[in-house]
Amino acid sequence: MSDNKAAPSIPRDKEHDHSQNMAQQRRTFVKEHTRSDLNHVGHYSLNPEQTAGNIENFIGVAQVPIGLAGPVKVNGEHAKGEFYVPLATTEGTLVASYNRGMRVLGAAGGVKVTVVDDVMQRAPVFIFEDARQAQTFGNWVTEKFDDIKAQAETTTSVGKLRNIEQYAAARMLYLRFNFTTGDAAGQNMVGKATFAACEWIKANFTGTGLQRYNLSGAMDTDKKHSQLNTLHSRGKRVIAEATISSEILESKLGVSAQMLFKMRQISNMGSFMAGSINNGSHSANGITAMFIACGQDAANVAESSAALSFVDVDEQGNFYIAITLPSLIVATYGGGTALATQKECLEMMDCFGEGKARKLAEIIGATVLAGELSLSAAVLAGDWVTSHDALGRNR
Amino acid sequence: MSDNKAAPSIPRDKEHDHSQNMAQQRRTFVKEHTRSDLNHVGHYSLNPEQTAGNIENFIGVAQVPIGLAGPVKVNGEHAKGEFYVPLATTEGTLVASYNRGMRVLGAAGGVKVTVVDDVMQRAPVFIFEDARQAQTFGNWVTEKFDDIKAQAETTTSVGKLRNIEQYAAARMLYLRFNFTTGDAAGQNMVGKATFAACEWIKANFTGTGLQRYNLSGAMDTDKKHSQLNTLHSRGKRVIAEATISSEILESKLGVSAQMLFKMRQISNMGSFMAGSINNGSHSANGITAMFIACGQDAANVAESSAALSFVDVDEQGNFYIAITLPSLIVATYGGGTALATQKECLEMMDCFGEGKARKLAEIIGATVLAGELSLSAAVLAGDWVTSHDALGRNR
Amino acid sequence: MSDNKAAPSIPRDKEHDHSQNMAQQRRTFVKEHTRSDLNHVGHYSLNPEQTAGNIENFIGVAQVPIGLAGPVKVNGEHAKGEFYVPLATTEGTLVASYNRGMRVLGAAGGVKVTVVDDVMQRAPVFIFEDARQAQTFGNWVTEKFDDIKAQAETTTSVGKLRNIEQYAAARMLYLRFNFTTGDAAGQNMVGKATFAACEWIKANFTGTGLQRYNLSGAMDTDKKHSQLNTLHSRGKRVIAEATISSEILESKLGVSAQMLFKMRQISNMGSFMAGSINNGSHSANGITAMFIACGQDAANVAESSAALSFVDVDEQGNFYIAITLPSLIVATYGGGTALATQKECLEMMDCFGEGKARKLAEIIGATVLAGELSLSAAVLAGDWVTSHDALGRNR
Amino acid sequence: MSDNKAAPSIPRDKEHDHSQNMAQQRRTFVKEHTRSDLNHVGHYSLNPEQTAGNIENFIGVAQVPIGLAGPVKVNGEHAKGEFYVPLATTEGTLVASYNRGMRVLGAAGGVKVTVVDDVMQRAPVFIFEDARQAQTFGNWVTEKFDDIKAQAETTTSVGKLRNIEQYAAARMLYLRFNFTTGDAAGQNMVGKATFAACEWIKANFTGTGLQRYNLSGAMDTDKKHSQLNTLHSRGKRVIAEATISSEILESKLGVSAQMLFKMRQISNMGSFMAGSINNGSHSANGITAMFIACGQDAANVAESSAALSFVDVDEQGNFYIAITLPSLIVATYGGGTALATQKECLEMMDCFGEGKARKLAEIIGATVLAGELSLSAAVLAGDWVTSHDALGRNR
Repeated sequence: MSDNKAAPSIPRDKEHDHSQNMAQQRRTFVKEHTRSDLNHVGHYSLNPEQTAGNIENFIGVAQVPIGLAGPVKVNGEHAKGEFYVPLATTEGTLVASYNRGMRVLGAAGGVKVTVVDDVMQRAPVFIFEDARQAQTFGNWVTEKFDDIKAQAETTTSVGKLRNIEQYAAARMLYLRFNFTTGDAAGQNMVGKATFAACEWIKANFTGTGLQRYNLSGAMDTDKKHSQLNTLHSRGKRVIAEATISSEILESKLGVSAQMLFKMRQISNMGSFMAGSINNGSHSANGITAMFIACGQDAANVAESSAALSFVDVDEQGNFYIAITLPSLIVATYGGGTALATQKECLEMMDCFGEGKARKLAEIIGATVLAGELSLSAAVLAGDWVTSHDALGRNR
Repeated sequence: MSDNKAAPSIPRDKEHDHSQNMAQQRRTFVKEHTRSDLNHVGHYSLNPEQTAGNIENFIGVAQVPIGLAGPVKVNGEHAKGEFYVPLATTEGTLVASYNRGMRVLGAAGGVKVTVVDDVMQRAPVFIFEDARQAQTFGNWVTEKFDDIKAQAETTTSVGKLRNIEQYAAARMLYLRFNFTTGDAAGQNMVGKATFAACEWIKANFTGTGLQRYNLSGAMDTDKKHSQLNTLHSRGKRVIAEATISSEILESKLGVSAQMLFKMRQISNMGSFMAGSINNGSHSANGITAMFIACGQDAANVAESSAALSFVDVDEQGNFYIAITLPSLIVATYGGGTALATQKECLEMMDCFGEGKARKLAEIIGATVLAGELSLSAAVLAGDWVTSHDALGRNR
Repeated sequence: MSDNKAAPSIPRDKEHDHSQNMAQQRRTFVKEHTRSDLNHVGHYSLNPEQTAGNIENFIGVAQVPIGLAGPVKVNGEHAKGEFYVPLATTEGTLVASYNRGMRVLGAAGGVKVTVVDDVMQRAPVFIFEDARQAQTFGNWVTEKFDDIKAQAETTTSVGKLRNIEQYAAARMLYLRFNFTTGDAAGQNMVGKATFAACEWIKANFTGTGLQRYNLSGAMDTDKKHSQLNTLHSRGKRVIAEATISSEILESKLGVSAQMLFKMRQISNMGSFMAGSINNGSHSANGITAMFIACGQDAANVAESSAALSFVDVDEQGNFYIAITLPSLIVATYGGGTALATQKECLEMMDCFGEGKARKLAEIIGATVLAGELSLSAAVLAGDWVTSHDALGRNR
Repeated sequence: MSDNKAAPSIPRDKEHDHSQNMAQQRRTFVKEHTRSDLNHVGHYSLNPEQTAGNIENFIGVAQVPIGLAGPVKVNGEHAKGEFYVPLATTEGTLVASYNRGMRVLGAAGGVKVTVVDDVMQRAPVFIFEDARQAQTFGNWVTEKFDDIKAQAETTTSVGKLRNIEQYAAARMLYLRFNFTTGDAAGQNMVGKATFAACEWIKANFTGTGLQRYNLSGAMDTDKKHSQLNTLHSRGKRVIAEATISSEILESKLGVSAQMLFKMRQISNMGSFMAGSINNGSHSANGITAMFIACGQDAANVAESSAALSFVDVDEQGNFYIAITLPSLIVATYGGGTALATQKECLEMMDCFGEGKARKLAEIIGATVLAGELSLSAAVLAGDWVTSHDALGRNR
């Protein structure tokens, strides 16, 4: 029922029951109170009991179509070889476009991918009476780093406190705790660890003027892009690169290296003028589709989709293309990774479980590069609109 | 098969066959060539034939758990009343947190939501020999607006060209075509319309020096955030507001209006210093979960999650909270909206089909506000970490 | 006197007396109360009486050294020919570097400069009870544009209201009034005109909920850079371009077109990653030096120094270089333009008085381009540090 | 002569002669070839010989009016007491406005100022064949920090290399060398030191793939604002704070603490939406005027004028106001500080010579705060336009 006046409460119990029965009760409730019968939502093979920790008020599932792309040839430090990539999306042409890019990159020898940084943050803020006290506090934090690290790490066997950045404004000192978090995405892990550290700091700081602290001062910056993330990374900083001969470009994509290169400069100017966080083409497409398929937190697309595009042409006319993803957040255990279809999709790439997070990051990096190449060429060649007409649901 | 050397091609045919049979063939292929059997991926109730236009190389579905939140009380121009909201996510505590916010907002009389702008863009760039020619061209475009509009609209019965922004840099003129697109998201619609307009422009421009144009000069800015989107909107610009008494805040969330307000100012400083695109808390969470459930293009979270948070306390101590979503991209037909579970989720809110896009935007706006309120209070009250421990999959 | 406890008041009178006598009294005061005798500050040829409107509590002048650069060959719409340029600075090598760039550009046929936009803003904010009222107000402002324009223009014979941008957030509507202001910079002119318009709006708006307005809502954005200024200009939007043969580059600057071009791409990536407002080299140097020499408001360097750099190499190996200054604020009458040395410097370029503002903007644009070329080449050729050693005051 | 066709060369000699005679020759040249006689430019008391290192092609001086403001009461770590402040400007009302703010702040007990960071940068970029080599290089740089530091410091007795930030994109590694530079601004000092370090790196790096390096990769970011500067400072990071009772605000500025506070939040929203680098009012005004008077490099206004404004009201109704200047670049020796009038202005505040740079930074911080307070109140009280009418040169 929509547009109603006094809507009843959703059936639920205190213990967040994840049984089939409870889910069915809620679907019946929806059927009675709205125009939807949820027959399809109620059709699933996952075991609802296993969604504890992933969802509350479970009613069923969204069935999101998965298309298969690949193989994409990856020359990573963790992913080595060719991989089939599951893309969960409802946008026509997306799979076809990534596939096309993967074919071209494969012909060019594949994609070299490097994870150059790997870090997760929680950023509390400490508030003082004045800036000078905040400065004193900052020096104290630097001195006590080992103690703070020890406290933070009492809460986790995996997370390690790497360093604490400090940013001063007015009478506040914003700290940014940087942790390594193994193969988990780690947002909750670092939240808990930072909380422990902050409580210890509050109890032990010997200086004056501390008014209070807040566990987040918005410099984390979680579930949103920031220039700070671009500079100092959040999650994995992944760089995917390839060099493609002019012959391959022309025969397979119908564009010349020179023209692709020139248009990239013009797009860069547009991105810069627009104040865009991403001078590439559409990294969000590939990342989102892989995130949904693989049980990643898709809300992290907000920050993970930031990208730095860089291209060049060498003296032989070969086209160099690189994409840098400064804040790609991935996990291969925890979160949604163990759910039924999500686990299968990770397994398809041998990316399920511990020790696989950087491998997954590398495959995502290579996939994004394929999409950048394919779309750039399509826009340039003028077949962008026509392919959407042929494959897409024209809207 | 991962880590292999010469991976075979994915079975497919030229016509992008979406039959059950073809999907089965591909799953068998995956089973043979990787470590995954895709049993769960192959379990779905949607009709694969209906995914034509949504996916290529279809192999099955991602089963993404849906939790039910609400009711959220919306005082919109299109959505009026209380709504149950489907949230597809794998992140524990998310549904519970939004639910909590909805309860508090309900107690406070609900959320007023207004769609203040509604527009979709494609932004070609025209390249000249020099800036002066580009300027002449800009004047010509202004003069010929009616002709350009007529050409653009030959390709669509729904899209209407509203205006063309012009941005000059070097010898390029970047145009940004702004269309209204009814209840579709409209990216493809406006791409096609702009292409028609550009071809006409190329054929009819009487000035000198035009070298070429590209259908995108990266000022659209599609699938990525930009300051330009924040300023001039992309999709719906939605403002959700509520006023909550100090009593309700304290009894239901355990925080005072004054403290919430003070901490918002401190977070705003952090956001500004970080160069964040969003001074709010976690709009991406609610938006992504609704997008996946409702067949929206989840990759648009990249731009849709941008948010402007503003709060105030009045003389009576009531807390005013508003969230402005400058670039929320939603559709109620086309794209993934007609798929099996997606349609059911839209129907749950009476948001399926034509004439419903702004209604859906309003419900999303209200949902986001609920999440902002709930998380802000949790961070402040210090129960953020503990609730993740209780409900979440601790990582 | 510094470090004192109870400092006396500066001698002054209510009427802001600008006489020689009053200035002398204040210098005597400074001599008595500080460690400075102000002998040099008191040495000037300008008539203090003429500084009324430019300064309060006049005590004398800063003698800022002026170096002569040029001639710079300008192919503008207003500046045509070769110009000697006065640069007031204390930074060694600056004049030499600009001079070098001017010589090279001259050899290449000069600089084409185009003023592509010309507008000055004041941006009030109107605050309502809710966003819907603000939206209604926005529509009313659009409808009443002619009336608002008429009211604004009652205060000025020069300023013309061109358009009003609208930006909505929460329950506020931010308006940005755009005026043309002839040959004045116009900040005060548009402030006064906008004030008149706002008062009329306040008195005549027939809708509900208006709480108050403020004459600036910080979207002007005055004396500071913003992405909004880059997009929509503030003051003059000036584009300076030149094409230089590879031979000239190599013989005169010791660098190849290809290398200059490649390094620009790498610098662009650095600028983008840093979140810089300017991907060029040092536009602020030339602009500031001309502003001080020519009686411009040097504080406007904050916004005027923003720049978009774009370069290319054509098939013949010629180097195209362009600088776009989106918010260059200049005046040729009013402000400090009529002061003694300032007027002489403007006259040196035949830029004093009405009808000359765009001409001055063009010469500044050409000068900036010369500096960009010269410094880029110096960094690349490795003679940057050595020339500072030779010419500069090494710090 | 303007608008001419073949302009003669400016008289100069190879040795950059700074004699009176040479300056006179150039003025004569200007008189012969343009419409300007330079009588006033030629009137100065400084000794041209002493401008060696500050200017080339010296022709005389700009006489920029100086107004006296103050006293401003500063409670710094280096500046303690009341100071008279020289402001060189041609903008009417500027001195009066800062003066007003100083009076109010004085009544409130003065301004607490803290220099919380102090660092100068040069940021070279190293280019490799691929990202993995760049990563290896980054690790090598970290290992060899002591050697690199030793090399850098061979060029300077003052500069000390504090740390090197690393930023990776594509196959480039951007380094940002951070130095302390004593009482000099230090741009040239750190350029020279970084050059020495880079040459050593190039000669000693044992890894593969290094293609070349450039002494600047545009992440310095010199003579331009960047978010990076806001985050990590450039020059001095200065925080000025004051607390003012509501009584003082109302009696002296005619505004209430509550209203000032509320309007600041609304301006903050405007700044954030505009993508401004500065959410304050007009820091550039005070900084520029002091920079010109005191022989600072006024082109650094481009970065030095960035500001973070933060205000609060406590339970007693007192108004807290703070301005954070993240990248204020000042010097008390070197550059233009020893020139005739410039030295006098520094002496007026006892800020000339070694050991005084932080003191000067503190006085500038306090001055900026005075201006922020005064203008905010003027805009709010509605006397902004009228005071410009009364004191300014209306344009």
